[in-house]
Amino acid sequence: MSEKLKKIAVFASGGGTDFQSVIDANKKEPFCDIAFLIASRAGIGAMERAEKEGIERRVYSSKDFSSLDELYSELEVLLKGAGVEYIVLAGWLKIIPKSFVEAFGDRIINIHPSLIPAFCGAGYYGLKVHEAVIEYGAKISGCTVHFVDETPDGGAIIAQRAVEVLPSDTPEGLQKRILEEEHKLLPWCVRKLCEGKIEKTGRKVLIKD
Amino acid sequence: MSEKLKKIAVFASGGGTDFQSVIDANKKEPFCDIAFLIASRAGIGAMERAEKEGIERRVYSSKDFSSLDELYSELEVLLKGAGVEYIVLAGWLKIIPKSFVEAFGDRIINIHPSLIPAFCGAGYYGLKVHEAVIEYGAKISGCTVHFVDETPDGGAIIAQRAVEVLPSDTPEGLQKRILEEEHKLLPWCVRKLCEGKIEKTGRKVLIKD
Repeated sequence: MSEKLKKIAVFASGGGTDFQSVIDANKKEPFCDIAFLIASRAGIGAMERAEKEGIERRVYSSKDFSSLDELYSELEVLLKGAGVEYIVLAGWLKIIPKSFVEAFGDRIINIHPSLIPAFCGAGYYGLKVHEAVIEYGAKISGCTVHFVDETPDGGAIIAQRAVEVLPSDTPEGLQKRILEEEHKLLPWCVRKLCEGKIEKTGRKVLIKD
Repeated sequence: MSEKLKKIAVFASGGGTDFQSVIDANKKEPFCDIAFLIASRAGIGAMERAEKEGIERRVYSSKDFSSLDELYSELEVLLKGAGVEYIVLAGWLKIIPKSFVEAFGDRIINIHPSLIPAFCGAGYYGLKVHEAVIEYGAKISGCTVHFVDETPDGGAIIAQRAVEVLPSDTPEGLQKRILEEEHKLLPWCVRKLCEGKIEKTGRKVLIKD
């Protein structure tokens, strides 16, 4: 590759399988430089994955800061100082303040395990999303990658994949099948983002081939 | 066929292409007796289709009744008197009162041109649904067949089909592609309903093969 790869940071709060999907796709055919894994606490699975891959990792836990604003303000200094261009939220359970969103413009993306605008927003995270889908009796769910703005799960949608809900599904079973799609969709979106092939105009997102 | 086919009534307020899809499927391999087409006004396309097929048709227009309750109460007498077992709302734009829903229990179904619970409820009908989907920037939409309860588009879901939203889509173009799925999904659901293969427990709907 003659061009330098874009630096990204991945934010995670859990096991980090979405994070791993970006690592794996990037190994096969590199499209980014994963500069940091930012974890919301120590000891989570995502941290172990970063360690194993030799990716620089940092913990930004609420208990180490006097406020969320202070946490994100220090995080901004770290990431901008290192030349990070894109931020990928891969199961990041912390609220992102408006100031941080504005600091990175349309360069933060998130993956959510439903077809937004269904089953998203405050209170819909992790297994709770799939529990709600099953309780509602929806027959189709899926996953969404979207730009992050100041509204929870409300930013412009980049891509979605549909997944059938089966009559026998438990929240865990549905989550597992949706994760399989997430692990294809997220690396695909990060690649397109880093290649400059995603064009956003208001809520319209166009992906160039 | 040794068993008598179940009588259904189809309610429509527009061109009646969903109605036609039930007629066509029923001609190929009969699963119901379409006893009535109920139209919300004279001169709509659905009326012409009923006439052409020799299906009994009636207009129940708000302007001919002192109230919606009176309209639905007369409609109930007509349908129950004729032994109609299931009601299929196929583009019926009139609000259904609770009393009518209760009179028919879980024997009224509706088709809606989105993946409920997204883009449904008050204000989302006809082309407005697809305009909203495109304005929001959703990448997947679809259609839903559900039982009718007292909440707008809120009853238990029977079946859904996903349809991709294309970057070049106009509301009309998206509507056209979703209608193609509706025309497969609706007759399939009506058949399962008339064959007694749909089992509803709370919001859980199971379709037996």
